[in-house]
Parts: sequence; structure tokens; C-alpha cells
Amino acid sequence: DRSYRIAVIPGDGIGKEVVPEGLRVLQAVSARYGCRFRFDDFDFASCDYYLRHGKMMPDDWKALIGGHDAIFFGAVGWPEAVPDHVSLWGSLIQFRREFDQYVNLRPVKLMPGVPCPLAGRKPGDIDFYVVRENTEGEYSSIGGRIFPGTEREVVMQETVMTRVGVDRILKFAFELAERREKKHLTSATKSNGISITMPYWDERVEAMAAGYPAVRWDKYHIDILAAHFVQHPDWFDVVVASNLFGDILSDLGPACTGTIGIAPAGNINPDRKFPSLFEPVHGSAPDIAGKGIANPVGQIWSAALMLDHLGETDAAAAIVAAIETVLAQPHLRTPDLGGPADTVTCGRAIADAL
Amino acid sequence: DRSYRIAVIPGDGIGKEVVPEGLRVLQAVSARYGCRFRFDDFDFASCDYYLRHGKMMPDDWKALIGGHDAIFFGAVGWPEAVPDHVSLWGSLIQFRREFDQYVNLRPVKLMPGVPCPLAGRKPGDIDFYVVRENTEGEYSSIGGRIFPGTEREVVMQETVMTRVGVDRILKFAFELAERREKKHLTSATKSNGISITMPYWDERVEAMAAGYPAVRWDKYHIDILAAHFVQHPDWFDVVVASNLFGDILSDLGPACTGTIGIAPAGNINPDRKFPSLFEPVHGSAPDIAGKGIANPVGQIWSAALMLDHLGETDAAAAIVAAIETVLAQPHLRTPDLGGPADTVTCGRAIADAL
Ligand SMILES: CC(C)[C@H](C(=O)O)[C@@H](O)C(=O)O
Ligand SMILES: CC(C)[C@H](C(=O)O)[C@@H](O)C(=O)O
Repeated sequence: DRSYRIAVIPGDGIGKEVVPEGLRVLQAVSARYGCRFRFDDFDFASCDYYLRHGKMMPDDWKALIGGHDAIFFGAVGWPEAVPDHVSLWGSLIQFRREFDQYVNLRPVKLMPGVPCPLAGRKPGDIDFYVVRENTEGEYSSIGGRIFPGTEREVVMQETVMTRVGVDRILKFAFELAERREKKHLTSATKSNGISITMPYWDERVEAMAAGYPAVRWDKYHIDILAAHFVQHPDWFDVVVASNLFGDILSDLGPACTGTIGIAPAGNINPDRKFPSLFEPVHGSAPDIAGKGIANPVGQIWSAALMLDHLGETDAAAAIVAAIETVLAQPHLRTPDLGGPADTVTCGRAIADAL
Repeated sequence: DRSYRIAVIPGDGIGKEVVPEGLRVLQAVSARYGCRFRFDDFDFASCDYYLRHGKMMPDDWKALIGGHDAIFFGAVGWPEAVPDHVSLWGSLIQFRREFDQYVNLRPVKLMPGVPCPLAGRKPGDIDFYVVRENTEGEYSSIGGRIFPGTEREVVMQETVMTRVGVDRILKFAFELAERREKKHLTSATKSNGISITMPYWDERVEAMAAGYPAVRWDKYHIDILAAHFVQHPDWFDVVVASNLFGDILSDLGPACTGTIGIAPAGNINPDRKFPSLFEPVHGSAPDIAGKGIANPVGQIWSAALMLDHLGETDAAAAIVAAIETVLAQPHLRTPDLGGPADTVTCGRAIADAL
């Protein structure tokens, strides 16, 4: 019935300033495209909450938000007060694991009005997705240390890849590629150096590719792939990667388009057994928090990713188009893009452009 | 007595074309700076050798070249005839391990005449080193597979860091930073995600830093560090990284300066118990091999790194200056840089410029 329950978690710092702009745009979309939202606010998964309760989230957090259709997330982290490994592993990483959000999806798109660090590239030249495995691989937490504090000290950590884990991320990526115009998939590997897990990854890519004859695919070792992101960003359409490689590529990609400050991310459970989470890539930015000058585009773009996931693809496309319209106008850009607009002005302009 | 025995291994493809230019420049240096070289040629560590003998190297390879002062290497690999994991693991990776070449050193320098993919950067803006751990870490070969071919299949691979291995690469990097003008070291980490080995790496960096009070140091997670290479390459002086992270950064850095085709690498055993190996970063380039148009700069720059390692620092600096002089002249550039010069013309010009 096109009505969605959204758990809203602003988190820390500028999260609290940009989330309202995301909601403003979602409300505008609702009026225009006839989908309905119920927004439930939650104050946990923030360092404020941690300082009051000694933990990042209440014990019943899964019950509180597990039934929602999606989580609309701001940013978490306040390193001055709470170390990152406490705040991030106690919230974001929990969501990813417990809600089995096994896809981390990030668009890499050169937008108008955003200064591009690459020479001679213009909007339209760069437009691809990084599809990152988000639950296993190099982030395993398995391992340990022997002979601590001595010259013989050795530290080990496992990379763990499962058939189920690798196949489902590849399936998501191939299906995404199949739906896109270029139908091109690139796999990030390092099978010439990481000699056990990476050849396995390659093997599964090859097996999966057989089921998608319409998709043209290739693979590059992560070292030269990172280089190609800089030298040939126009080569890519859908790039699929393990947890660590995807982490690197999904910061490097936005850096190449100058958009780290406005890029969105989806932490997605494609099976819809659990809610997916949508967040801007920028963090809580303690240095500019409270000033009302944060750029709300990443949060608003995250709303578009969320709508895409919910099946509201027209509304999602309309938001991206509205963002492009506004970014093209210098007086509507926030200070990080050299403009004079504050957070609310920019957010309102995007809502109005819809 | 400033006389050096050099094992010369051209290897495959354009390796055979660019190595002679490296030797030409070394001969010119010898005349001018009074150091003497004895060059011994070897045909192994090449796919030709493999096709004739069924192995990449003779059984006594360590005896044949282990007593030399350095190895001057071209390129290995001919994927059409021999798979990369056979040719590379049977030669280059052997040298690194058996000769304990635990430092992989790569300069990242924006050179005149090289088109830079980054907007608005000019020669002099970017000038740093990537110091990569070259023997352990993520390239461990330890691990395996369980339940192969079934839905329960799981593949694991260990990352292994030893106190000895981590400390010695950090020591090399801090000492290099201490000798440089900016005295600035950046450590690549990912302790917010790779929760066992990377916090250990951070711990050792902190401990090592205490011994180098003149060196200013910082650390970045690899994802944002890769982004900074693109957005702020001028921030860096010496970047130290694990085997995998260093592999990525030492391709990404040269990509940012447009120099992957001319960058050099040193595989160094700083203790001088074994010979160190110097090679251009570009591979054997089967597509242009035999045409006499390969760019010899990477090989010649490798000769400079080799001289630096041997203590011939004036001669090393002179080679780099000669490369810069020649690259600044359009008619002396090879086709990959848009020029008309062939391999020999470019190599001779650099030798003459000395
Ligand atoms: C060929 C490969 C194993 C090697 C590596 O990853 O070390 C290469 O990329 C390099 O950087 O020398
Ligand atoms: C905070 C950190 C653990 C996280 C990650 O590496 O996954 C972040 O870099 C991201 O990309 O969301």
C-alpha cells in the first residue's frame, strides 16, 4: 500500500542537522508521489546516549526498530568523548551484522557544482556503483596474539569468506548490472597476492557470471583498480568487492568525484527480512557541528537510495534530479562547496525543486 | 672501494628493451662519478626460461646471484604462455622472501612532461615515498578451505604480523622520514575495521615513534587515506603501510602523478645480508614488446634507487635530475607520453644529460 514505517536515528554532530532536511525532502516527495511515511525518532546509536546510559543502544534495540521498513540514519561518532571503536562497533557495525545488511551500496557520480579533483572530467562522465560485501571477509574479528610483549610476538587475523556470503553479494551486483544500461560488472580481486581467499572470490565470480550472459564483466587486482579509478573512472558501471576492498573503493570513488562530503550509502538487506539502513558517507563532523552550515545533500541523497530500495524508483530519481538542479546553482551551495547557503536553505531548495 | 657486482636480469617482454638503457646510464654514471660496476647477465626469472626448463629459475639460483651487491631487474610475466601465479611467485616473490627484501620502496613524484590526472598540480607539488612491508602481513599463504563445492563452503586466510616484521619496516620508514626535509611520516591503518592485526600495527607505530622525536607523524584509515592521495597528495612525505595496503598505495600514488609507466621500485634488504632488487613498476607489456618504443625511464629511475641503496647518493640524484631534464623536452619523450622518441633515443638522451 506504499506506506512505510521509517526509524529515524540522527545520531551525533551534524547528523542532527542534516536528518531534518532529509525528512523535509521525504515529506515533499510524499505529497507529490503519493507514498506515505510514518517516522519514528530514536535517540540511541549516539554518543549522547552512551554518555547517559553507558552503552550505545538499549538492550531491546532490535525489537524497537527491527519491524520498520528502513532506518534513516545521520552519523555516529564523537571521538573526543567516546572512542570510535566503541561508538561505531556498538551501533553501525551492530546494525550491519544483526540486520544482515550484507550489501553496502554507494553511487559514485560526478555532480554539477562539485569541484572534481580529476582534470578534464565533467558531470555525466563518471557514474557507477560500488557494491561492497558488508558482513564478513576481512572484518572477521577472529584471531589473536601469542608471546605478547616479547620479541617473538605474533598477531594473526583471519579473513573468512563463505559460499553463501560471497554468492549473495555477487548476485546482487550482477542483478544491478543487468538492470543498468551498460550492463558491465568489474570485480576487485588480488588473487596474485592473497593466494587463498581471493582465488576463491574469482572462482565464484566466474560461476555467477555464467548465469548473467547479458552482463559483460572483467576483473582487476585492487592495486591497479585503485589506479584506474583515478585514471579511467569512466570505465566503470558496477564494481563489486569484498568488505575491505569495497571499503577502500567506496571512499576512493567519491574522492575522485569530489563528493565524499555529499555521497550516500545504503546498508541493505535485499531479502527484506530486516530493515536496511541509509546514511550519508560523511561522519558527524564535530568541527562544524552546531553551526547550521553542514551540507545536507548526502543525507537527502541517502533518502533517494532508501526510496529505491523500497521500490519508489520514480520518487528516488526525482530526488537525485532535484539535487542536481540545486547543486548547479552557486547561491544554493553550502560553504564546503564554496557557496553561501546554510543547511536549511539548501535542504528547502531541494524540497522545492521536486 | 666503490666497485659493485650487479646481477642483471632482463626477464620478459619490454624488460629486455629497457634494461640495456638502464645499463647505458649506469655506465655513464660510472665514468662521471668514479664508481665501478661489474654486470653479470642472467636469463632466468623469465617465461622464456620457464618454457625451456619447466621452471622459472635454476635450482642453484641463490648461489648464482646471492653474492651480488644488487639485482637490476626488468620485468617478468607473459600471461599468454605462463600464468602469472607461476611466473611471479616463481621469481619475484621468491626473491623478496628468500633474500628477505622486507622493504618495498617507491617514490611518488610529479615529473615534468608527464600528464597528471589531478587538476591543478604541477611538478614539485607531489614528492613522497611509499614504504611497503614486503614479506608478511596479508600475503601469508596460510589458510584453507572446508566443505569444498557445497553450500557450507568456507575459505579462510590468515594475516600474520610479527613484532620483528612490523618493527623493522617501521624503523626503516622513520629513519627515512628523519633524513628528509619535512620529517613527516604517515601510517596506513584500518584499526576501526580490521580489529586485531591493525590495532597491533598502530601500537607498534606509537612505540617506534617515541624513538624519533624529530619526526612528526599521523595515521589514517586506508579508505580515507586513499581518498587523500587523490585530494591532498601534497600532504605526504613518507607513507608506511602493511604488505597489502602498501601494494595498493604504491600503485595509487604513481597513478595520481600519472607515472605508473615510469615509476621505479626497490625491493630492499636494508641489512645487506642479501642483495636488494630494483625494478620498474610497469610489467613486461606484451602488447608493445619488440617494437622498440617502450619507455625506459622506469628502468633508469630504478638504477637511481639502486645507487641510493649502494650509498652512491650523488650519482643517484644526478640520474633523477637527468630524467627530469629529458622529460621536460617533448621530442625526447616516448609515445606513451605523446612523444616521438624510441626507447634508445630516450635512454641515450638521459645518459648524455648526465
Ligand atoms: C604481482 C604481485 C604479486 C605484486 C604484489 O602484489 O606484490 C605486484 O602487484 C607488486 O606490487 O609488485
Ligand atoms: C567505521 C568503519 C568501521 C567503517 C568501515 O570500515 O566499514 C567505515 O569506514 C565505513 O565505510 O562505513
